[in-house]
Amino acid sequence: MLRVALFGAGRIGQVHAASVAADPRADLAYICDPATEAATTLTDRFGGVPTTDIDAVMADESVDAVIIGSPTSTHVDLLTRAVRAGKAALCEKPIDLDLARVDACWAEIKDIPHTVMIGFNRRFDVSFRAIRDRVAAGEVGRLEQLAITSRDPAPPPDGYVTASGGLFRDMTIHDFDMARYFLGDIVSVHATGANLITESGDIDSAIVVLRSAGGALAQITNSRRCAFGYDQRLEAFGATGMLSAGNQLPTMVRYYGPERTDAADPYVGFFLERYTPAYRAELDHFLRAVEDGRAPSPSFADGRAALALAEAADESMRTGAVVTLG
Amino acid sequence: MLRVALFGAGRIGQVHAASVAADPRADLAYICDPATEAATTLTDRFGGVPTTDIDAVMADESVDAVIIGSPTSTHVDLLTRAVRAGKAALCEKPIDLDLARVDACWAEIKDIPHTVMIGFNRRFDVSFRAIRDRVAAGEVGRLEQLAITSRDPAPPPDGYVTASGGLFRDMTIHDFDMARYFLGDIVSVHATGANLITESGDIDSAIVVLRSAGGALAQITNSRRCAFGYDQRLEAFGATGMLSAGNQLPTMVRYYGPERTDAADPYVGFFLERYTPAYRAELDHFLRAVEDGRAPSPSFADGRAALALAEAADESMRTGAVVTLG
Amino acid sequence: MLRVALFGAGRIGQVHAASVAADPRADLAYICDPATEAATTLTDRFGGVPTTDIDAVMADESVDAVIIGSPTSTHVDLLTRAVRAGKAALCEKPIDLDLARVDACWAEIKDIPHTVMIGFNRRFDVSFRAIRDRVAAGEVGRLEQLAITSRDPAPPPDGYVTASGGLFRDMTIHDFDMARYFLGDIVSVHATGANLITESGDIDSAIVVLRSAGGALAQITNSRRCAFGYDQRLEAFGATGMLSAGNQLPTMVRYYGPERTDAADPYVGFFLERYTPAYRAELDHFLRAVEDGRAPSPSFADGRAALALAEAADESMRTGAVVTLG
Amino acid sequence: MLRVALFGAGRIGQVHAASVAADPRADLAYICDPATEAATTLTDRFGGVPTTDIDAVMADESVDAVIIGSPTSTHVDLLTRAVRAGKAALCEKPIDLDLARVDACWAEIKDIPHTVMIGFNRRFDVSFRAIRDRVAAGEVGRLEQLAITSRDPAPPPDGYVTASGGLFRDMTIHDFDMARYFLGDIVSVHATGANLITESGDIDSAIVVLRSAGGALAQITNSRRCAFGYDQRLEAFGATGMLSAGNQLPTMVRYYGPERTDAADPYVGFFLERYTPAYRAELDHFLRAVEDGRAPSPSFADGRAALALAEAADESMRTGAVVTLG
Repeated sequence: MLRVALFGAGRIGQVHAASVAADPRADLAYICDPATEAATTLTDRFGGVPTTDIDAVMADESVDAVIIGSPTSTHVDLLTRAVRAGKAALCEKPIDLDLARVDACWAEIKDIPHTVMIGFNRRFDVSFRAIRDRVAAGEVGRLEQLAITSRDPAPPPDGYVTASGGLFRDMTIHDFDMARYFLGDIVSVHATGANLITESGDIDSAIVVLRSAGGALAQITNSRRCAFGYDQRLEAFGATGMLSAGNQLPTMVRYYGPERTDAADPYVGFFLERYTPAYRAELDHFLRAVEDGRAPSPSFADGRAALALAEAADESMRTGAVVTLG
Repeated sequence: MLRVALFGAGRIGQVHAASVAADPRADLAYICDPATEAATTLTDRFGGVPTTDIDAVMADESVDAVIIGSPTSTHVDLLTRAVRAGKAALCEKPIDLDLARVDACWAEIKDIPHTVMIGFNRRFDVSFRAIRDRVAAGEVGRLEQLAITSRDPAPPPDGYVTASGGLFRDMTIHDFDMARYFLGDIVSVHATGANLITESGDIDSAIVVLRSAGGALAQITNSRRCAFGYDQRLEAFGATGMLSAGNQLPTMVRYYGPERTDAADPYVGFFLERYTPAYRAELDHFLRAVEDGRAPSPSFADGRAALALAEAADESMRTGAVVTLG
Repeated sequence: MLRVALFGAGRIGQVHAASVAADPRADLAYICDPATEAATTLTDRFGGVPTTDIDAVMADESVDAVIIGSPTSTHVDLLTRAVRAGKAALCEKPIDLDLARVDACWAEIKDIPHTVMIGFNRRFDVSFRAIRDRVAAGEVGRLEQLAITSRDPAPPPDGYVTASGGLFRDMTIHDFDMARYFLGDIVSVHATGANLITESGDIDSAIVVLRSAGGALAQITNSRRCAFGYDQRLEAFGATGMLSAGNQLPTMVRYYGPERTDAADPYVGFFLERYTPAYRAELDHFLRAVEDGRAPSPSFADGRAALALAEAADESMRTGAVVTLG
Repeated sequence: MLRVALFGAGRIGQVHAASVAADPRADLAYICDPATEAATTLTDRFGGVPTTDIDAVMADESVDAVIIGSPTSTHVDLLTRAVRAGKAALCEKPIDLDLARVDACWAEIKDIPHTVMIGFNRRFDVSFRAIRDRVAAGEVGRLEQLAITSRDPAPPPDGYVTASGGLFRDMTIHDFDMARYFLGDIVSVHATGANLITESGDIDSAIVVLRSAGGALAQITNSRRCAFGYDQRLEAFGATGMLSAGNQLPTMVRYYGPERTDAADPYVGFFLERYTPAYRAELDHFLRAVEDGRAPSPSFADGRAALALAEAADESMRTGAVVTLG
């Protein structure tokens, strides 16, 4: 049985706590959060000891792995300490808002044997994964164009936006990873943004165009607000066909009436509901990697690469020019 | 150029007048209707001479073909006279409400060389026809089950229902023909009806089950009223797959909002709008048959067979028993 | 914690064992099956003690509830004994193949306070349930026509068919229950069957028409074999609209190629995979009923009523006549 | 009756000739093409006099209107002469490949009263038009993001590409007009292209991002080759919902088999078939404008604006920078 310590008892912490509790191979050892009450609520339900003592968690040799779901600013420190303490780590995205800090973190850990995975949960979504596998199996020939639509149901509170590092680091970063999941290395980025919805000052609508090392083009459409729910779609266009992933529906029911026919249900909630099975599958992948001593995917390098794309998108939007990557 | 006389300047007469006018091979010679004003409105628009004189039309040797779109009670007489006058005839369904009169008509015309076609226009619908062709080509293997859904947008006026011979002779007769179009000879019928919608006294909701000579089963679902429009669908289930025809939509537009997603438009009008291209294709088939001297399809025998099924359905509904056909 | 004994370690037993193991409110006490190896395989995985001793299970006062997933011929006996032993019982369908035995069973248990539920799992399917709730909430007005399509992917072995009591008792019984779930009491039945697929001698294709006490008509289409997978659909047609439930898909992926566009995936497996969440929800409902002392639904009476419809269908098919119930 | 002269007896000339012949308000006066045989083939079928004499056509005072479907290089000359001769003109897109020549043409004609329309036929597609009308009616709130997918079934011959002025002037120009049809003035353009398919040297895959004066963002995805047919889609995302237009299907048939379920037909041909009704509606709009003396839409200015966007896209692709428009 793998003993897992969880950092962060917030929204995403709850998801991970439930996933660990539901997995027969793992037990929750600790839930560590300065907000003791939140941690206790989770340990009461899912097991483990609530704590605020990071040092104690890191020092407990019975802990095999940590899940880092605390605020972004704490990721690098916790990740570095976990690796030094010989623990496997599953760290939420982004690793940090600052690429320099990410690189410094890497310098610290790169020579220590480690199992580090970054929480790009969408790679584990059953539809996106099926498309990638079918593309890899040649079902639509060489991949030429990738279109990702990603819209949130409603904008976050204004304070959140600033702290989050902006649209590209906070929201698009998932889509950058998805583009890399399908296309591998990205060689250039162009970003166009607009502030159409919120008073936050940050852009809330964006279109980003990527060119991959292999020549394929990708396009990401983002919005912070979508009246018809959490809009998560993808089209993979290849030389001999196309595969698309539509939105997840809660039922297979269709409505027919005087105004609308063949109408589907409203979409499934927000990311926590939409990607529940993906979070489970992500944890499963992580635990297998820990058990087998294999390198998990997405890796630290994947986390860094997505952040580098977010930085490039910021620069492109500022200058209007295409930004070329390393 | 084929010269065509049209009997009947009502709803269906208008459709045929427009079809003839649009066809480069045919001209309207006469539009014959006791309602002179209605006939004149049509001849003003589509050509031809308005008349009330059936004898004159039948005597005009320049007339090659007649289209019989007048009330059902006049069909047998006009059909018989047209055949005797050596004219091809396209006669609306049903041939008559009474099978005995239909048989008497056949006795009159069967030994005279003739070109007679019955107006089961749905055989010319592009989707139904495509499915039949694909079934015939073996795409879904041997046909085992056929499901026909056929619902009108709104019930006819109460007077109409009585005059029409009831649901099975008036409305289901199209579906009986469709079942025969796919399955050939029908050997038994069972009908269940209910009066759920109107005050007419006649049934307005029905389910009819047919067994074909080849063993396949067919099922027809009818309603006189459908809140979401004219509902015309078909499923052909075979040993190796299924082909279905959904409803015709005016555009390919889909709506996404808070209550409904992926919602299609309301359906295309009633039969005159829904089957406009089918009426054109039907006329085209008739004119080709006239030009080439070939037997058109659906034939007089097809018209008789559908009426026989309607009679059997009436009897089955009355007795509760399966009715076996000759 | 509720202690549950499971009778039957076969296919359906596995589903129930997994459901109980996954439910935080229940523990497996025993898995009872003459095939010791099968029982042990399940207890090794899901907990509980493997046994062949029915008496011991019934005598164990710590057992709160039993799940009867053993062969149909054992249902009545186990159900009666469980009720006598004061245990709640969830019994798979059908209660028995013989209505007389079911009535005798009822005579035995009806005066003993009991919690008995019959395993019509489809009532717990998220799409069917949503439609029923929306119909009940008036979304499509008064329900007038119900269409149920229910086809298995492949016929069972020939031996199974005879033992199962034939198509109507074995397969259609689910659809009879679904019709009652939507329409309540059924007053008449007409059945048409055909042997198109197998060498079993039993019918393998059928269309059944039902009339409800409220006047609505229902139609069930069955086939023992479906080339495109487990086909489970429903249309609820009402005075102001329609709600339909399509088949469950494993992903939201669509394929576009030269021959087919907008093509969905093959359907989700057979009933064990298709209805996995429904089996879970069914168990949840049963456990709540046990905890709260409420009468579960579907009840013993529901199980009897579905069987009575199957008998009536058999008779109708034999005579060709409508069979009137109660 | 309006007398119409057609310049160009090629592919697009055939479409216009058929449209004129089918319209009860117009007659073909001339079909003018240096390829006399092609012109004669069309006049034999649709009426009018074949000719190679442009001067004679322009001098014929009985000619009310001209349709310019000849090679792009001849457009400006024919358009200018038609306006000078007092004839209305419907000119195919693009007006010219060179913006300077277009501006010179405008200088010539702007002070002469004229009726000039540019052939952006997609504005007359029933789905695109319906979406624009519904957006204008407020059905999805303020328009924030527009996504246009436009892919040809197969690349043109290599020679064509060079003569056509490249992807943006030849193919994307329709999408530029569509973006303007929905969003009005465009203030900046960024284009990304790739040569993935052909040996032509020109780009064959592109993503273009536009910003409108009103702040909305638009994105165009193009490919010169699409294995699943002519892919013409649009999504209009607004503050309160979204409207999308899918591809046109020849029938409503769906196929279900072991490998694919709910599979639609291959798409309708290429632009001549896909947009046949749009070409008819375009001609209808033009003839009404001629009859009523109203300014048709899309106007000369619309034709110039789309070309200006194509030039800006070329520049953006060359420099990697956003190009701002006047």
